[in-house]
Amino acid sequence: MPLHSSVVAQSTLGLHSLEHYEPLIGASSLERISRKADRVRTMRIAHVSSTFYGGGVTELLTPLTLMQNAMGIETDWHLIQGTPGFFAGTKKLHNGLQGEDVDFSDTERAVYEEVVFENATRIHLDDCDAVIVHDPQPLPLISHFSDREMPWLWQCHVDLSQPFGPTLAYLRNFAEQYDGAIFSLPEYAQDFAVSQHFVRPAIDPFSPKNCELSDAQVERCLSGHGIPTDRPLVTQISRFDRWKDPLGVIQAFRLARQQVDCRLVLIGSSASDDPEGAAVLEAVKRAADESVIVLAVDDPVLVNALQRRSAVILQKSTREGFGLTVTEAMWKGAAVIGGNVGGIRHQIEDGWNGFLVNSPDEAAARIVQLLKDARLREQLGSRAKESVREKFLMSRLLEDWLDLLISYERIAV
Amino acid sequence: MPLHSSVVAQSTLGLHSLEHYEPLIGASSLERISRKADRVRTMRIAHVSSTFYGGGVTELLTPLTLMQNAMGIETDWHLIQGTPGFFAGTKKLHNGLQGEDVDFSDTERAVYEEVVFENATRIHLDDCDAVIVHDPQPLPLISHFSDREMPWLWQCHVDLSQPFGPTLAYLRNFAEQYDGAIFSLPEYAQDFAVSQHFVRPAIDPFSPKNCELSDAQVERCLSGHGIPTDRPLVTQISRFDRWKDPLGVIQAFRLARQQVDCRLVLIGSSASDDPEGAAVLEAVKRAADESVIVLAVDDPVLVNALQRRSAVILQKSTREGFGLTVTEAMWKGAAVIGGNVGGIRHQIEDGWNGFLVNSPDEAAARIVQLLKDARLREQLGSRAKESVREKFLMSRLLEDWLDLLISYERIAV
Repeated sequence: MPLHSSVVAQSTLGLHSLEHYEPLIGASSLERISRKADRVRTMRIAHVSSTFYGGGVTELLTPLTLMQNAMGIETDWHLIQGTPGFFAGTKKLHNGLQGEDVDFSDTERAVYEEVVFENATRIHLDDCDAVIVHDPQPLPLISHFSDREMPWLWQCHVDLSQPFGPTLAYLRNFAEQYDGAIFSLPEYAQDFAVSQHFVRPAIDPFSPKNCELSDAQVERCLSGHGIPTDRPLVTQISRFDRWKDPLGVIQAFRLARQQVDCRLVLIGSSASDDPEGAAVLEAVKRAADESVIVLAVDDPVLVNALQRRSAVILQKSTREGFGLTVTEAMWKGAAVIGGNVGGIRHQIEDGWNGFLVNSPDEAAARIVQLLKDARLREQLGSRAKESVREKFLMSRLLEDWLDLLISYERIAV
Repeated sequence: MPLHSSVVAQSTLGLHSLEHYEPLIGASSLERISRKADRVRTMRIAHVSSTFYGGGVTELLTPLTLMQNAMGIETDWHLIQGTPGFFAGTKKLHNGLQGEDVDFSDTERAVYEEVVFENATRIHLDDCDAVIVHDPQPLPLISHFSDREMPWLWQCHVDLSQPFGPTLAYLRNFAEQYDGAIFSLPEYAQDFAVSQHFVRPAIDPFSPKNCELSDAQVERCLSGHGIPTDRPLVTQISRFDRWKDPLGVIQAFRLARQQVDCRLVLIGSSASDDPEGAAVLEAVKRAADESVIVLAVDDPVLVNALQRRSAVILQKSTREGFGLTVTEAMWKGAAVIGGNVGGIRHQIEDGWNGFLVNSPDEAAARIVQLLKDARLREQLGSRAKESVREKFLMSRLLEDWLDLLISYERIAV
């Protein structure tokens, strides 16, 4: 039986019963979602991705798969196994989809396709009623299931609005074998010759990263990690990835510190399928001075505590699939400064529930403004929390998925 | 279709057709194994473990699952997802099973059981004909499948000969719900009230870690990692784990260097479910001087190259489940010095195909002896290779598994 003490909840995968959402979304929403679930209760769903750890896909699939199973919808989550060479290649594909001019060699292509083939021999999906494949890593799987009798959907969590041509052309061959493609936002889509769907991401308000923490728990957590709170904290929580612009964050912080005293915290864990992360982390450490705390740890409770305790939360991305770390910070009522890109623009209405910035200079100015005005921080933060409650909780994402599955149940392959 | 160029083979999960073993084991063995496979061809098998990366379980399950599927035996490999708190707890259970006096708190127990429960809701095994669960991490899964109609086996890769009493008593409750327990060696077993089976580990001779490399490939690989070969290399390849005694290795190396010039290489990757690895790695780095190269990387081709190029391979474990790194080194014809413990004693016959040692002093003496006698190194190495060919290749392990599955098919639950 599940245990629900707060200590356990913070150490496990989270609460996963829809009933827990009732205080947040109300009884009528709960009932509407339950009725939709009844319509797909007999379906068996399989998700396929490349890791259980790190990155936005994991953050979504962990609660989604647990919630669906808790509702009686049999939902599996399969992983593909890769090699270092495989993940180095898929990282290039990921960067290519985001617009970088990448050189994906014939050997890398052979390794990519061969590893996916090997995994295909070991993943058995005959009994499923729908298969959802996530991101580029397992994308070619579908080639090895040509006698499939159920819909296959590719969910692309990457912004495809300005892809590198050769990368897109190559992956299009696989994507168009699917029955549908799912994007986070309409402007990220590509004109694949398949049905298009949109499911905006969401956060799990009961996960260790997002659940309520008392002030005492927050202070204990920060001091346990050696993070002093003698000066206001300015924090960016993000993988060490150059699209997250950690060096731009350090630059903005240096400018801001000329006017207000503060401390910068940069915290992130490299996704286990991201070989570039270590190099970016090294560059960040070289650029940091003694006012900057750099932590490469994977501790969701620490992230939670930092989002609650920091005076300002930054997410100064220069490209962003959606920006779940922005959602998480807004859910805690934080004053958030986000890069004026991608999904961050769907979350932050500039000057209303946060700030959008286009440069380190702009970021620095907003840091100074916020650090000098506690009332403004509180005002933006409380509006931020309300907008997440309305639009970006897992209960809304679950409902989007139920709608999508219902539509595919009707038009079975 | 699988590609078989050497470049691809070294970057993918390996060759996985039994036919590739014919030059190594002969046509009659191949035919005998194929006949056994025919008898279980209609079974569907599921393995469950905690990671695709790092550790001996992965080394065995990657080729085994691929080979079985290549033979037409539907074999899945499911992973359980954990949290940092979960893996910290299961590491304690692992250490407790190996005899350490561990304090496994009620909270850790609650987290352990809750995380496994959460995974159980998401792993659907109704269609399987046999389920094999590996090591302590997913052990409690069986509690949540009480209406199962197929045999469940627990494969314990840990030496249970001298366990910490409370740890064993706790895990026994779960282990005895299974239909059978599988150990690597008879002396590692416990008297659980279930059937007992023994499957010795084996290596995949076609994996990137074990496949043939030319001398030029070996030199290129070592120089690419900055490993000089101006002096003889003494190498230990092992996770940074105190049971592998890396500090004892450094001590032995220092003693040996008083008599012969050489260089020590310590290389290993922390398994992703081993939170203690980082601390051991730090201790090793502190103890190392400029003649010691410490590499925390996960590069199977580098391991392969080092096993082929080193004058002496050490595996100075003080506890050892089986010691696959010993098997791998012996397969390359290396002169191996192993700790006189566990499975290493089943592989090395002291003075015949390697050396067994009981202390850093003994290890130092054997290092000196081997470095001074090239003919002895070659003699031991060639016998080492032959003994692995006879007893420790994946084809033998596959046959053990077929025998086991045949026995359970006859006595279905």
